[in-house]
Amino acid sequence: MEIEEAIKILCKNVLPIKETEEVSLIDSNGRILAEDVCAEFDQPPFPRSPLDGYAVKGVDTFDASEESPVILKVIGKVYAGEVYKGKVSNGEAVRIMTGAPIPDGADTVIRQEDTDYGAETVGIYKGQKPWSNYCHAGEDFKKGEVILEKDLTVNSGIMAVLASLGKNTVRVYRKPRVAVFSTGDELLMPGSPVQPGKIYESNNTYISSRLMEYGMTPVSAEIVPDDPDLMAEKIQKIAEKADLVITTGGVSVGEKDIMHDVQEILKAKKLFWKVKVKPGSPTLAFMYKDTLVLALSGNAFAAVANFEILGRNILYKMYPSERIRIKSRLVTMKGALAKPSGMKRFLRGYADDDTVVFSEGLQTSGAISGMAHCNCMIEIPAGNEGAKVGDRVRIYEI
Amino acid sequence: MEIEEAIKILCKNVLPIKETEEVSLIDSNGRILAEDVCAEFDQPPFPRSPLDGYAVKGVDTFDASEESPVILKVIGKVYAGEVYKGKVSNGEAVRIMTGAPIPDGADTVIRQEDTDYGAETVGIYKGQKPWSNYCHAGEDFKKGEVILEKDLTVNSGIMAVLASLGKNTVRVYRKPRVAVFSTGDELLMPGSPVQPGKIYESNNTYISSRLMEYGMTPVSAEIVPDDPDLMAEKIQKIAEKADLVITTGGVSVGEKDIMHDVQEILKAKKLFWKVKVKPGSPTLAFMYKDTLVLALSGNAFAAVANFEILGRNILYKMYPSERIRIKSRLVTMKGALAKPSGMKRFLRGYADDDTVVFSEGLQTSGAISGMAHCNCMIEIPAGNEGAKVGDRVRIYEI
Repeated sequence: MEIEEAIKILCKNVLPIKETEEVSLIDSNGRILAEDVCAEFDQPPFPRSPLDGYAVKGVDTFDASEESPVILKVIGKVYAGEVYKGKVSNGEAVRIMTGAPIPDGADTVIRQEDTDYGAETVGIYKGQKPWSNYCHAGEDFKKGEVILEKDLTVNSGIMAVLASLGKNTVRVYRKPRVAVFSTGDELLMPGSPVQPGKIYESNNTYISSRLMEYGMTPVSAEIVPDDPDLMAEKIQKIAEKADLVITTGGVSVGEKDIMHDVQEILKAKKLFWKVKVKPGSPTLAFMYKDTLVLALSGNAFAAVANFEILGRNILYKMYPSERIRIKSRLVTMKGALAKPSGMKRFLRGYADDDTVVFSEGLQTSGAISGMAHCNCMIEIPAGNEGAKVGDRVRIYEI
Repeated sequence: MEIEEAIKILCKNVLPIKETEEVSLIDSNGRILAEDVCAEFDQPPFPRSPLDGYAVKGVDTFDASEESPVILKVIGKVYAGEVYKGKVSNGEAVRIMTGAPIPDGADTVIRQEDTDYGAETVGIYKGQKPWSNYCHAGEDFKKGEVILEKDLTVNSGIMAVLASLGKNTVRVYRKPRVAVFSTGDELLMPGSPVQPGKIYESNNTYISSRLMEYGMTPVSAEIVPDDPDLMAEKIQKIAEKADLVITTGGVSVGEKDIMHDVQEILKAKKLFWKVKVKPGSPTLAFMYKDTLVLALSGNAFAAVANFEILGRNILYKMYPSERIRIKSRLVTMKGALAKPSGMKRFLRGYADDDTVVFSEGLQTSGAISGMAHCNCMIEIPAGNEGAKVGDRVRIYEI
């Protein structure tokens, strides 16, 4: 099965999350808006002065010049946060500060640098047309207007917009609930003592950390021994609350490749086994009741590559957040790789704006050190004769 | 003062953070490594089988074919996580699973698809040269080798590497401590009722949220009235624990532009006032004891632009995390803007891989709604006649 077909099947078996919840503004970054957000007032809510100066009727200032200033009577003062209750008539001015409401009657603000800074009366050195230096009420947005559309991913700029709308909570879709299991009798928890024949688990760390970057905390993140009954029980239990289960290891053809048995024990519906991609071709996917189980190879880079391509597409279908959206672009290859592959292949790379090199370290699917200086995966199309210096190649940011 | 000069002065007045702390692996994403991380064992720690099959001496299999299989005696079995204690001699094989240690004496693994899957004896259909299908101990990395260099920013891939090294904690630099104050009598907290003449505060939300994206929680995030004594006191107090104070509002020339007074009350050393940039030219910067105070304009986009250019450069000097590093690139303008500017100018834009358009909404510095669909700032050089369709322009991702 081609990887595009696998993505199609996986995405067909999950639904966008519809449940919503209210979160506080400060916790909303990365969440997806579950409803349009409308303005409940004009912005600015009142005609606002964009600078420090004097609010006047523009017509009074037409003849002003440094040689013969126009003299106006200063009838009051207004700071930002205050309201001047009176009205400006011809021949009058109100001292005004940036951000203050422009008093009724005034139609422009003369900036203080163009005046004599007068307190009782003010001499205007330079005239202004009516409605210049005048921020109209609602010029930024109007009451009732949709300012933020449903399905936008909240970022810091959108949080600032929500704040300016007076919102300290916002309705968003709930996050997907994802469980991550690593299978293998050979796996040790990081931090525990070295043991002969065993290696430290790292796939769970990678996938859980990626989920956390998307704003999700895994509902379970565990190492499970090579025991199909135990693993089946784990999935059965977690499926009650998880939208998606991702496992690593146990999908190949060996005696300890338990995920095939797990699928049978659970009487789960197999979606596919084996995808034409390197690394990680033995990927297995099945549906247990309503929960999709994506069972990835346990080899370090195989798990990474298939999480990034398959897992991330599933998550994006469930929860189309800008953070999850796969970022892919064409860049110029600076390194060469002779090895051709009959299947589409992903390799570790380090990309800048326009070029990419292969990461240092082994590219074999079981090697992990190459993740140390890797910021993307390089796609080598099927049947391609490897990659040459100068080739334009597609990369996927990770 | 040109903005490049302002950045230089600001960066000269802060030092990279040197204090370190130990954090748990799962909390290390986005942190900066404070020391080289070395391997304490070979990876793999033992010669490892890359597949399911039979561990043999390759020389025994040279003549194997489907027509005349080589028959070997199966002397044992080894799964991943176990160790086979015996030794493989000529004429012998050990059943082996992916990830298991290859027993002494064996120099290759015949994949099970090339055998008759025998249990007592096994028929080999296809030979292998010694040291093929054989992952050497230490081929990924060797004991004592530096795997992760000091100053790397931890990401999910690096977390996986740390896990595979057996680490569940890691030594990183402490995060910068940043305080964020918004000044202005006109400012309301989001969530509080509308009041005449007042507007909702949004700069603090933006800056605090950006800091949180970089992994920092502001040590203080407050709205302060236009009272220079109170503001001076706040800075005096927080300076005991903050590396950087960012304020918005009160930096222009009006009577309520309190930050000039604050600087004098604190007897702080002024670094500069006014930068040749639009929006946000009245930026003020001063040193109070060892703490840099960056006082930005209170206009919404002025605060954003100057935080992104000035604030982010300061933070990166203190804490050179990949998350803080300014991401800038050249793209093609799809919209036109007639208005020329004598100063360097930043405008809100929405960019894809290779093009950028102006964001919907007002571009004036006080307007906020334009942040709703904005993912970058577009730089228009000083003296430039605006921007034309087809121009290559520099953008800064935000």
